[in-house]
Amino acid sequence: MPFTQITPVLLCGGSGTRLWPLSRKSYPKQFVPLVGEETLFQASAKRLSGTTETLSFGAPMVLTNADFRFIVTEQLAGAGIDPGAILIEPEGRNTAPAILAAALRQAETDPEAIMLVAPSDHVVPDAAAFHAAVALGLEAVAAGDMVTFGITPTHAETAYGYLELSEKSDGQPVKLSRFVEKPDAARAAEMLAAGTFLWNAGIFLFRAKDMIAAFEALAPGLLAPVKASLAEAKTDLGFLRLSPEHWGGAEDISIDYAVMEKAPNLSVVPFAEAWSDLGGWDAVWRETGPDENGVATSGEATAIDCSNTLLRSESERLEVVGIGLENIMVIAMNDAVLVADMTRAQDVKLAVSALKAKGAAQATHFPKDHRPWGWFESLVVGGRFQVKRIMVHPGAALSLQSHFHRSEHWIVVEGTARVTIDDEVKLVTENQSVYLPLGCVHRMENPGKVPMVLIEVQTGAYVGEDDIVRYEDVYARS
Amino acid sequence: MPFTQITPVLLCGGSGTRLWPLSRKSYPKQFVPLVGEETLFQASAKRLSGTTETLSFGAPMVLTNADFRFIVTEQLAGAGIDPGAILIEPEGRNTAPAILAAALRQAETDPEAIMLVAPSDHVVPDAAAFHAAVALGLEAVAAGDMVTFGITPTHAETAYGYLELSEKSDGQPVKLSRFVEKPDAARAAEMLAAGTFLWNAGIFLFRAKDMIAAFEALAPGLLAPVKASLAEAKTDLGFLRLSPEHWGGAEDISIDYAVMEKAPNLSVVPFAEAWSDLGGWDAVWRETGPDENGVATSGEATAIDCSNTLLRSESERLEVVGIGLENIMVIAMNDAVLVADMTRAQDVKLAVSALKAKGAAQATHFPKDHRPWGWFESLVVGGRFQVKRIMVHPGAALSLQSHFHRSEHWIVVEGTARVTIDDEVKLVTENQSVYLPLGCVHRMENPGKVPMVLIEVQTGAYVGEDDIVRYEDVYARS
Repeated sequence: MPFTQITPVLLCGGSGTRLWPLSRKSYPKQFVPLVGEETLFQASAKRLSGTTETLSFGAPMVLTNADFRFIVTEQLAGAGIDPGAILIEPEGRNTAPAILAAALRQAETDPEAIMLVAPSDHVVPDAAAFHAAVALGLEAVAAGDMVTFGITPTHAETAYGYLELSEKSDGQPVKLSRFVEKPDAARAAEMLAAGTFLWNAGIFLFRAKDMIAAFEALAPGLLAPVKASLAEAKTDLGFLRLSPEHWGGAEDISIDYAVMEKAPNLSVVPFAEAWSDLGGWDAVWRETGPDENGVATSGEATAIDCSNTLLRSESERLEVVGIGLENIMVIAMNDAVLVADMTRAQDVKLAVSALKAKGAAQATHFPKDHRPWGWFESLVVGGRFQVKRIMVHPGAALSLQSHFHRSEHWIVVEGTARVTIDDEVKLVTENQSVYLPLGCVHRMENPGKVPMVLIEVQTGAYVGEDDIVRYEDVYARS
Repeated sequence: MPFTQITPVLLCGGSGTRLWPLSRKSYPKQFVPLVGEETLFQASAKRLSGTTETLSFGAPMVLTNADFRFIVTEQLAGAGIDPGAILIEPEGRNTAPAILAAALRQAETDPEAIMLVAPSDHVVPDAAAFHAAVALGLEAVAAGDMVTFGITPTHAETAYGYLELSEKSDGQPVKLSRFVEKPDAARAAEMLAAGTFLWNAGIFLFRAKDMIAAFEALAPGLLAPVKASLAEAKTDLGFLRLSPEHWGGAEDISIDYAVMEKAPNLSVVPFAEAWSDLGGWDAVWRETGPDENGVATSGEATAIDCSNTLLRSESERLEVVGIGLENIMVIAMNDAVLVADMTRAQDVKLAVSALKAKGAAQATHFPKDHRPWGWFESLVVGGRFQVKRIMVHPGAALSLQSHFHRSEHWIVVEGTARVTIDDEVKLVTENQSVYLPLGCVHRMENPGKVPMVLIEVQTGAYVGEDDIVRYEDVYARS
């Protein structure tokens, strides 16, 4: 039997708040190693890569937003995966426009192509079982159905939508009866008992042409703006930037509401293995594998006489100790600490709102700021100075720039930098420093083969990020 | 009526673990602003300074250890108080040898002097009421009694020792019947009901000669070693360093056990106003003034739906959020976070033991390290580099030193430094830098009138504190 070729489509443009402080708008949970050593996005990309006995996954198409584009390429490179098209959504419009854009893009070259759309922030420990489920859906797809995957419920969960099956399944695909909104606890218990309801995981398998046909029949208003935003998309450093004008005209709606709930040609493949969308710290606690007292720790965390407790330290220089805690979650980072009762896992968004209201950067941003060329973090800010650690990827370059209010000292502590100061260009290596007087036009590059790290000491009356004039930028930011 | 002259004696050599992580061996709670803006030591020194209607406090005598001696002088200067003798205990031997040393030292010039010994980590909000209590004790002192102050209990506390009065007091001094050890809960309740038991606060008023006579009668074995350690004490930069050889021969014993419990000439002055020894985070919670839900916050801390909860952020760059917590204490610092059930306040020492067992520096040390010349903190440590922020007091100087394994870059960001590099001496001011190659003999000084801050970037194969050769040190550390 020949391999069936499948194009994975990874959705990673969203940014939830339920896993704050580890997940923030500037670097959301899919890009964080929440469970295990890989990030959820990397694990998702790997799960949908390579070949199995019957399947061959092509290069993944990725839908993300401009802020995350370099995180996507960096993490795919780290996972050893070559991406296919990376579509940049000018703004988040929920899943319907994104999936339609992916299908239209695919149909340009192959309308028969089988696509597998998946969120990139789920945990599916048994990849082989998931591949088997995908294979089970292929016959229905060949018959023109769109297939969704339903997770066999393990408890009466109220945080998920459900899929009602037309009949009980022994593991084989069955026709979908209907979508069910998030239930209350009583209804969730009934559905758990009935055995014909599965959790809606938001994972879809379909031929490009069938998805487009579904939109034509059921959500025709989305076709024109999404087609136009694709037609007028700009290629930029390998990213495909959808046209913002047209994209903004597409309705902000989920694929379930726009198409799936009305589509007649839907099949469900049950998936009975472990799965989690890590929809809250309580889910992370479960997935981390609590001990016999229900205690799960991560990093430099010590639990003394605790039960049903999650203790996470997200920094190797941060010791976290819990004493006598029950049903408590502690997530400690260098700039933010969350302590919450386990039953309040869905209320973590309240913390984000409270911090936004008081104007705290921690609501949305990390101290470490990822840029196309690498990252920087502020180590200390004083009255008239700031110290940063800056890491530049091999081959990368910062923009050619100048500042009105600050001078800078750069001390290279790892690797080698090529530094431009006005008309002069020189190499600066470990344990060497350069001085950049106020107003000089300068650029930092890493011409080497290993990461370059330098310490930047800024002095001046104002050391904010917005005191920058960009003259030239390989990342098109000038 | 003339002022009665009183010599305060501040005991501040101890370092408890019950307020970890804010109180650590390297910088214990008496030197920290736990409640209000002053440190407990500063507040204690101020409370026992100046004049009242009837009292005049002299320069305080301070008993501390070598590690804290520059903290003591810095904090007294910050509080605007000129110290009297600062006695350095070579090692902690509990309160009996310390108080005897103070009395002997005072008796050298004035055996009739009235001394008031007090711990420096208590909270006494109403200083005037305390002064009135001291004044009440003077008559008994003049009659040859030693006076101890007893706190009127507000609840059946099991963490304190008690003083049993010979009769009920209407606020006037009464003779002490006996000392009572820390009771169990039932006994504490009985004593609370009886009305003749006060908390033992460890504060004593006496004439120098009477205390010495008490030791001669009741603990004669302590006299020889303490006298000898005082006779052979060395003066060092204004500190009086007790002789370690003789000090080590003094019994490690509290003043209560050595003398007070056996002394016939003891009176008690009741003190009915607010008092706390801040013996745990639950006490800090009470003293911080919880709101109507029992929530007390400090620093950048946000409580959402919490009750009976203490939330403290000890850094302006650290946001702490609690959601749905009951009876929980959270103390968050940049390098350590404690989360404990409020009923486990007395078990915080378990956290310190656990961290010691795993070799974590946070058990005992802060990232900010106080030195005679100022302080430094490590901002980041990499494989072959370290970045520090260093603050040098006006007029202070680091030792003349060299390193085998690291070079250093210094960038001045506040004030002006005088830098010696081998045979060269130069001034380096804000926004200027110097390079110190591996092996050079160098010194950093602040010749100016304002604090000098510089950023030090170390690079080399080894960047530990112990790679240092000291050639000359104004603080006698070479």
